[in-house]
Amino acid sequence: MEIKQLVHQIKKKRSFLCVGLDVDLEKVPSFIASGPDPLFDFSKAIVDATAAYAVAFKPNIAFFETYGPEGMDALKRTMDYVHTKYPDIFTIADAKRGDIGNTSTRYAKAYFSTFGFDSITVAPYMGKDSVEPFLAFQDKHTILLALTSNAGASDFQFSESDGKPLHHHVISTSQTYEGADRLMYVVGATKASALSEIRKLIPNSFLLVPGVGAQGGSLAEVVQHGITPEIGLLVNSSRGILYASQGEDFAAAAAAQAQALQAEMEQLMRQHQLL
Amino acid sequence: MEIKQLVHQIKKKRSFLCVGLDVDLEKVPSFIASGPDPLFDFSKAIVDATAAYAVAFKPNIAFFETYGPEGMDALKRTMDYVHTKYPDIFTIADAKRGDIGNTSTRYAKAYFSTFGFDSITVAPYMGKDSVEPFLAFQDKHTILLALTSNAGASDFQFSESDGKPLHHHVISTSQTYEGADRLMYVVGATKASALSEIRKLIPNSFLLVPGVGAQGGSLAEVVQHGITPEIGLLVNSSRGILYASQGEDFAAAAAAQAQALQAEMEQLMRQHQLL
Repeated sequence: MEIKQLVHQIKKKRSFLCVGLDVDLEKVPSFIASGPDPLFDFSKAIVDATAAYAVAFKPNIAFFETYGPEGMDALKRTMDYVHTKYPDIFTIADAKRGDIGNTSTRYAKAYFSTFGFDSITVAPYMGKDSVEPFLAFQDKHTILLALTSNAGASDFQFSESDGKPLHHHVISTSQTYEGADRLMYVVGATKASALSEIRKLIPNSFLLVPGVGAQGGSLAEVVQHGITPEIGLLVNSSRGILYASQGEDFAAAAAAQAQALQAEMEQLMRQHQLL
Repeated sequence: MEIKQLVHQIKKKRSFLCVGLDVDLEKVPSFIASGPDPLFDFSKAIVDATAAYAVAFKPNIAFFETYGPEGMDALKRTMDYVHTKYPDIFTIADAKRGDIGNTSTRYAKAYFSTFGFDSITVAPYMGKDSVEPFLAFQDKHTILLALTSNAGASDFQFSESDGKPLHHHVISTSQTYEGADRLMYVVGATKASALSEIRKLIPNSFLLVPGVGAQGGSLAEVVQHGITPEIGLLVNSSRGILYASQGEDFAAAAAAQAQALQAEMEQLMRQHQLL
């Protein structure tokens, strides 16, 4: 998918919501968890319930991979379902992969070709030749970890060298990689004040922003520091939508949460005169 | 597996060879590539051919994952075969995972429980709460990326803050994590001179050393700078063993390459009076 198609969809739906599919079988309604195909059934129900309010779906690969080949089969069927029923929705493999060149190429093929995702999250530690194999895929997008939303982000991501924190070096250096126009970045909502500095480095790049909701980030602050004329934001919510209810009404409750976020996003876009 | 069992096996086999299973279907013999189960058949043949000379097997997960659920099924059967036939051999999931806590826990379960590996490679960028979920597993080992063997390692791993390169900070900081006694580190053979400095930080930790052979690292230099009284090294070879021949004799050729490395390792251990 091209960026302009994503932007078109955001303006049409008046939403930059990404729904994270972190399917925890200990939290899904028991009548689904005890069924024959809980990973797929729950994912499909959430996708159907929230597709009207979301522009992106982000399966968290670990929650499928933890069940081995069967989990990956459920992921495959989930992606086939999304691509068939909602072909306009941007899909993100939240996989945080990255390895030497010939290995990153295999991960890129796995997620862009075999599973058919539009994008994948990638860890930057191994540098240029671990990232460029992902960037080599046309019309696909690589979402590099810059500043993550977790507590451990402070271990290394703020280490200063040459007067700049590591996550700034990650952004600046990666902008020199071949295919850098297909880069997006993960920037956690829990560090919204750092967003202004990041926007000086990459005024137009799309940012995937986790951490609103369960992790404590504020949507209004993210928009204040991070929005661009073409929006440039995908704000993720997982737990707040997926487990809004654990009863028979879980899908309706998920839809209501997604709709509430969409309404808040629409209001913020209007405030910033972007609709 | 406990470290003392690994050390016992190293001294018994007079080898610290790790065979990397980077199963590239474009490079395996055509009579296997065209068969019904090439990932498993090739892996099994290499495992059987090299088990006498190796103390560890390291499947590169990307080469299985690239084929989706079927690839992961071949990985599962490969691991079941190794565990059943060679229960003393240390197994490494070369996966380079790492994510926020609840997600790293899923990756740990995937590789330690579902696939039954003894260890997994993990990327450090997200810090403490992305690594500790792996360390929480008893008798399992987490092999953290410190200094990798690829060209892109120079992008960030040598960034200096407080007078020390990032990979030193990764090592020192991770040694404060809960369960740090179950940490090992990836240190590339192509940077052997950096090994002496790394050994000052972690005099006893096991190091997984890629990059000997195809990537140009020297085994003698790695041993000179990195060996400990308990050996403390697992030196990986993948392509040099796996694709020593692409003919019908591929397994015998792989065995010969593994045996040659074992012989060189035995000689080096004797030189250092460790046998």
